[in-house]
Amino acid sequence: MKLLNRAISPLFTKRLLAAACCLSLSAGALAAVVEAAKPGSKAAPKLSMSELLKASAASDWRTPDPENTLYLEMDKGRVVIALAPGFAPMHVANIKALVRENFFDGSAFMRSQDNYVAQWGDPNEEDAAKKRQVKSTLLTKDPELSVKYTAANSGAAFTRLPDVDGYAPQVGHVDGFAAARDPKMHQTWLAHCYASVGVGRGNETNSGDGTSLYVVNGNAPRHLDRNVTVVGRVLLGMELISSLPRGTGPMGFYETAGQMSTIKAMRVAADVPEAERSKLEVLRTDTPLFKAVVEAQRNRGGEWYKRPAGHIELCNVPLPVRLQK
Amino acid sequence: MKLLNRAISPLFTKRLLAAACCLSLSAGALAAVVEAAKPGSKAAPKLSMSELLKASAASDWRTPDPENTLYLEMDKGRVVIALAPGFAPMHVANIKALVRENFFDGSAFMRSQDNYVAQWGDPNEEDAAKKRQVKSTLLTKDPELSVKYTAANSGAAFTRLPDVDGYAPQVGHVDGFAAARDPKMHQTWLAHCYASVGVGRGNETNSGDGTSLYVVNGNAPRHLDRNVTVVGRVLLGMELISSLPRGTGPMGFYETAGQMSTIKAMRVAADVPEAERSKLEVLRTDTPLFKAVVEAQRNRGGEWYKRPAGHIELCNVPLPVRLQK
Repeated sequence: MKLLNRAISPLFTKRLLAAACCLSLSAGALAAVVEAAKPGSKAAPKLSMSELLKASAASDWRTPDPENTLYLEMDKGRVVIALAPGFAPMHVANIKALVRENFFDGSAFMRSQDNYVAQWGDPNEEDAAKKRQVKSTLLTKDPELSVKYTAANSGAAFTRLPDVDGYAPQVGHVDGFAAARDPKMHQTWLAHCYASVGVGRGNETNSGDGTSLYVVNGNAPRHLDRNVTVVGRVLLGMELISSLPRGTGPMGFYETAGQMSTIKAMRVAADVPEAERSKLEVLRTDTPLFKAVVEAQRNRGGEWYKRPAGHIELCNVPLPVRLQK
Repeated sequence: MKLLNRAISPLFTKRLLAAACCLSLSAGALAAVVEAAKPGSKAAPKLSMSELLKASAASDWRTPDPENTLYLEMDKGRVVIALAPGFAPMHVANIKALVRENFFDGSAFMRSQDNYVAQWGDPNEEDAAKKRQVKSTLLTKDPELSVKYTAANSGAAFTRLPDVDGYAPQVGHVDGFAAARDPKMHQTWLAHCYASVGVGRGNETNSGDGTSLYVVNGNAPRHLDRNVTVVGRVLLGMELISSLPRGTGPMGFYETAGQMSTIKAMRVAADVPEAERSKLEVLRTDTPLFKAVVEAQRNRGGEWYKRPAGHIELCNVPLPVRLQK
């Protein structure tokens, strides 16, 4: 990779340098970074995100619950999706029921609209003779657009960003998801960021049953927040979806079945033999380390950046995932 | 397309309906929409963006200057790039000189990093024996990160968004580009949005000479603003770049030459025979109609949206392009 190092622009030069220099981090150094990460602090953190991650403890990471993890198997590989039962329990149950009756096996991405969403499901859903029959009793089509404050989604579980957001009174992260909340209404909801997964619907908010799902493949369409149910996010394999050829029909729908990418299977991770599961860990978002990561991204240091932004937009906060050792 | 209409989620159902109903718009109706678009107005506009565009006048559109338009020719088609000489005159001159000496012909996309940037140039730039020689005398490597207020980039030329932005004191649009400005410093600069094109550089800000260019393919990396020179944006063909397979090396670099997508040629549009040019028009951003379009996107109405956002983030503002009739 030496060949390309000079061509490394515009980002992450410092990460490569950091990766090369075998950094270790004392508890004191971490405490200093965490201190610098406090809102209003003018002290620039000295460690980059990659240095912080290298210095992280095992307890800074968690293993996603296999009962709420989906595998979407494509020809080119596996996409891993984390579900959010705390925010959309009924839709998560619906989707798992559909997955467990193999509803999505042999289904397809029928839409890839540039800088917006890719969508998958039954391409024949409008054809009564050909459409897939749902065997399970689905719980609801009512949308799950926000939830009341609970210990699981507010308080210490909600790591608030220090900065202003145009779409919501407060934004931050809950359990690895980008979220927003309204302290007056005591409501929390998931935000539409790159890689967010939601439930397709028609004009009526209660027309989404989980048989058609979408994933954001472009600039965060936050105007969709609380208009449509978000059920999770892609943890791994997003590049398999984002690189799909864009559909040439209106709204990025493919115009022929042959243009659609087939979904070989969808599975709940818990149903897959353990040896075949993806061994992932995701960074916890309720820790001092995560706050330090956010601050490292709000005000990037290192060799490359000359002007720290002093801000980070909700959907630009990285939510690191790593393979278990 | 009827087949897929029910599957149309989450967006644009209303546009299809609008397109079907042959709307025309009186001057009075447009005036009402423009009135509703004023900052602070609580009146929801009654027309969608697509309805506004259908009702637009010829004078709401402009033809990009062929002397500041680039064609990047790929196997799968043409990418059209609008240059921004008002913001980066030296780099625009460098890039045009490089294009005119055919520097980029046979070059390649050597990087496609998911949710960040794709980058193109000479894959052998680190190899003294193989690298392409620059024949032109390049004007500068100094960055062009912001410009002083002029009539061409502030005042009536700058259509300010009414909403807060986390990265800059004020944001809006100038001459079809997403921009930001600081009224205290009297400086304006281009923002990094999806499809923005910038000049790759190494660690030093004056290390970018235009021989390596990048385009944003994911959520707006606004933290790059004023760290690196933005020279324009993709007007058409962005989907050819965004759907490139992601590179598997660090930072999305491709690991072998065979993985890279070749650039057949780059041309200044003015140098291409008129019959072979892309006949585009872009929506003017200094008009009442554009303000109405922004408002229609800030608070979307129609059948599908139930909760207008009351906000639009800079990089979510659409910058419409159409083929000339």
